[in-house]
Amino acid sequence: MTSGDKQRPLGVAVLGCGAVGSQVVRLLAEQRDDLAARVGAPVELVGVAVRRLDAPRDVQVPDGLLTTDAHGLVARDDVDLVVEVIGGIEPARSLILSALENGASVVTANKALLAEDGPTLFEAAAKAERDLYYEAAVAGAIPILRPLRESLAGDRVTRVLGIVNGTTNFILDKMDTSGAGFSEALEEAQELGYAEADPTADVEGFDAAAKAAILASLAFHSRVTASDVYREGISEVTAADVASARDMGSVVKLLAICELRPGPDGQDQVAARVHPAMIPRSHPLASVREAYNAVFVESEAAGQLMFYGPGAGGSPTASAVLGDLVTIARNRLAETRGAGESAYADRAVQPMGETRTRYHVAIDVDDRAGVLATVANAFADHDVSIQTVRQEGRGADAQLVVVSHAAPDAALSATVDQLRSMDIVREVTSVMRVEGGDE
Amino acid sequence: MTSGDKQRPLGVAVLGCGAVGSQVVRLLAEQRDDLAARVGAPVELVGVAVRRLDAPRDVQVPDGLLTTDAHGLVARDDVDLVVEVIGGIEPARSLILSALENGASVVTANKALLAEDGPTLFEAAAKAERDLYYEAAVAGAIPILRPLRESLAGDRVTRVLGIVNGTTNFILDKMDTSGAGFSEALEEAQELGYAEADPTADVEGFDAAAKAAILASLAFHSRVTASDVYREGISEVTAADVASARDMGSVVKLLAICELRPGPDGQDQVAARVHPAMIPRSHPLASVREAYNAVFVESEAAGQLMFYGPGAGGSPTASAVLGDLVTIARNRLAETRGAGESAYADRAVQPMGETRTRYHVAIDVDDRAGVLATVANAFADHDVSIQTVRQEGRGADAQLVVVSHAAPDAALSATVDQLRSMDIVREVTSVMRVEGGDE
Repeated sequence: MTSGDKQRPLGVAVLGCGAVGSQVVRLLAEQRDDLAARVGAPVELVGVAVRRLDAPRDVQVPDGLLTTDAHGLVARDDVDLVVEVIGGIEPARSLILSALENGASVVTANKALLAEDGPTLFEAAAKAERDLYYEAAVAGAIPILRPLRESLAGDRVTRVLGIVNGTTNFILDKMDTSGAGFSEALEEAQELGYAEADPTADVEGFDAAAKAAILASLAFHSRVTASDVYREGISEVTAADVASARDMGSVVKLLAICELRPGPDGQDQVAARVHPAMIPRSHPLASVREAYNAVFVESEAAGQLMFYGPGAGGSPTASAVLGDLVTIARNRLAETRGAGESAYADRAVQPMGETRTRYHVAIDVDDRAGVLATVANAFADHDVSIQTVRQEGRGADAQLVVVSHAAPDAALSATVDQLRSMDIVREVTSVMRVEGGDE
Repeated sequence: MTSGDKQRPLGVAVLGCGAVGSQVVRLLAEQRDDLAARVGAPVELVGVAVRRLDAPRDVQVPDGLLTTDAHGLVARDDVDLVVEVIGGIEPARSLILSALENGASVVTANKALLAEDGPTLFEAAAKAERDLYYEAAVAGAIPILRPLRESLAGDRVTRVLGIVNGTTNFILDKMDTSGAGFSEALEEAQELGYAEADPTADVEGFDAAAKAAILASLAFHSRVTASDVYREGISEVTAADVASARDMGSVVKLLAICELRPGPDGQDQVAARVHPAMIPRSHPLASVREAYNAVFVESEAAGQLMFYGPGAGGSPTASAVLGDLVTIARNRLAETRGAGESAYADRAVQPMGETRTRYHVAIDVDDRAGVLATVANAFADHDVSIQTVRQEGRGADAQLVVVSHAAPDAALSATVDQLRSMDIVREVTSVMRVEGGDE
């Protein structure tokens, strides 16, 4: 007997019974007594909405709880809490909106929907005076949204650097440790179940960009959607890029980068971008291996924090969902709600071209006098200052490796275009942004 | 103008204006507008209690706010929120109790008090129906208590391994990187301000033990006090221990270890201990350098998580205090409170002698036939199974390095006593527990 037994049970509807949903259903049963004690009332599964009743699934759903009528389920009077783990835009959006309208509080793991149309959901939650929690939407089980929203609420976050996609981290790690090329590493990731048959959403950075939008919104109290996030995937990363990173004591990672940056009027703007970048091996994110995720946060008072853990998987994601579920259930009993959307700062989004970045450029050049000066002039023409130049090889194999100081991304990009057009340049063999060091 | 301007301001009293208090006062002023927007009402400093009005301090406290009458301050009607950053047992305890009785919500960073007498405070908060938050008490700015209490509330935490004392991590890191002995490394830490003139609380593990008690209480929903925590400091760690760790690809860290372990009746018990231990260099905690802190959490559904950041310092600790302050201020406006103490599981504490650990033992032995068998017998006599034995050197320099499998700590300790008494053993040169690998 737990103290919660005196309270009316809270009814939970789970929408979707795939990798995450089935683990949520399992944990609700296995942790039944602990959940009741932590919430202060029993938490009871009252329905699970699925597309097909007879599909094979990883969990035994109790008799009579499965339904194909998701809309009917979220409208039921005995549903206090709704867990949406269907994913995608529709029907997830209309189900969440309908659940809130019907008075339920909602937990969702739906990063794509939040990044595309979060404000619609937040406004619906505010209007219904209900909670909408979504810790599981970013970096799986790693508690990162709650720390940003609550633990750092008295601080000023200036930067978030995250490895938030396990598939791409696995591929890049494999390329780094084995010297494999992208295709080979992708194939291995697919064989091991780390990448899907159609890996586009992961390898082209769409998944990470959605998470970057969510992180930037929370960190900077502004509305940032996926379309505000500059995005480059890893399919163009070559074994030569990875080797070049290694030569300079760095490693290539796909980073989600969210920063406060001064705009033309001196007001801080939000810059959010996802692209592969070289980071020094001494940086805490460099040691994030395989399919793990980690989020590195810089704030004015706290300094540098890092959060690390499994970024995906049914069971870790379900852990994050249940953490939120306990909170919204407790709020429900106390007839209160947690902090809703915080977008008061309402900062503008900085275009990628204006965002200051640093480039690493490797160039095959003719080995003759004056080459270095000519290359240096190309950088100077665009007001880009050079941090280091390294010359490797001689004669036909001569290569220059240039690392710039920070400059507007458009200027760096124009510099690379100019280098490509120059006679003395045989080939620009590697272009990659550099993060995590001094500017 | 912020949306909060329509609300009555919330009055904050800060008790103590040392390293942390002065940063809290600074941030309250600097972040004034942001705090108002995040809380939904202005948050106004109404008093700062200090021991001496004329002491030098790192912040300019506005005129008329300083007082030496802390008890008078917490009893004032315009004080809604109290921040206790005096530290120590008294007068901190009676001030917190008095603040709660007078209807204020409280944030404290006082690990010693919480670890010694937490239940008294929690009961007072429950009775007064007020919040008592204390994120800053463990690992400075690193959000670890809130994730344990809320994010992992739907999961089952099985183990917490923490580097929660920056002074000792700095010293051990220095010994590892420079080969220095303990005294030399301590001196350097003192020169750099990482260790106090009287370093006892840090180097003998008292500080870490208080934090272990707080972590174990939260992780396992039970009451664990500092006196329940087995404690060994690092003052006996030798350069030989550190070198021996290095030889086996490990590093010595002072760990706070909190675990769920089956007791004699099969029920899970809580084992909490602080001692130096060798961990593999591949373990995420091994790369925590200098005075940084990190907490590694294992749970059934989420798997392995790590939280990393600065574990001390005025400004980082103040960030954690202000994060809590925003939460309790929001709760105050909503006329609600956060989750109070959760001790429903009420698990027994497992004595150290019964807790299963692994030992690394290095022994100088006579190099003659049968030595290894004799040593192996000493382990077998206590039912301790050996994982690896490595023999180093020959003749007078012969050394055996034994790493055991997990066994009750008392059995391991008795084994070492027996080794010390044996004729063939010249000296037991290094004894240290091993963590973070397979058992």
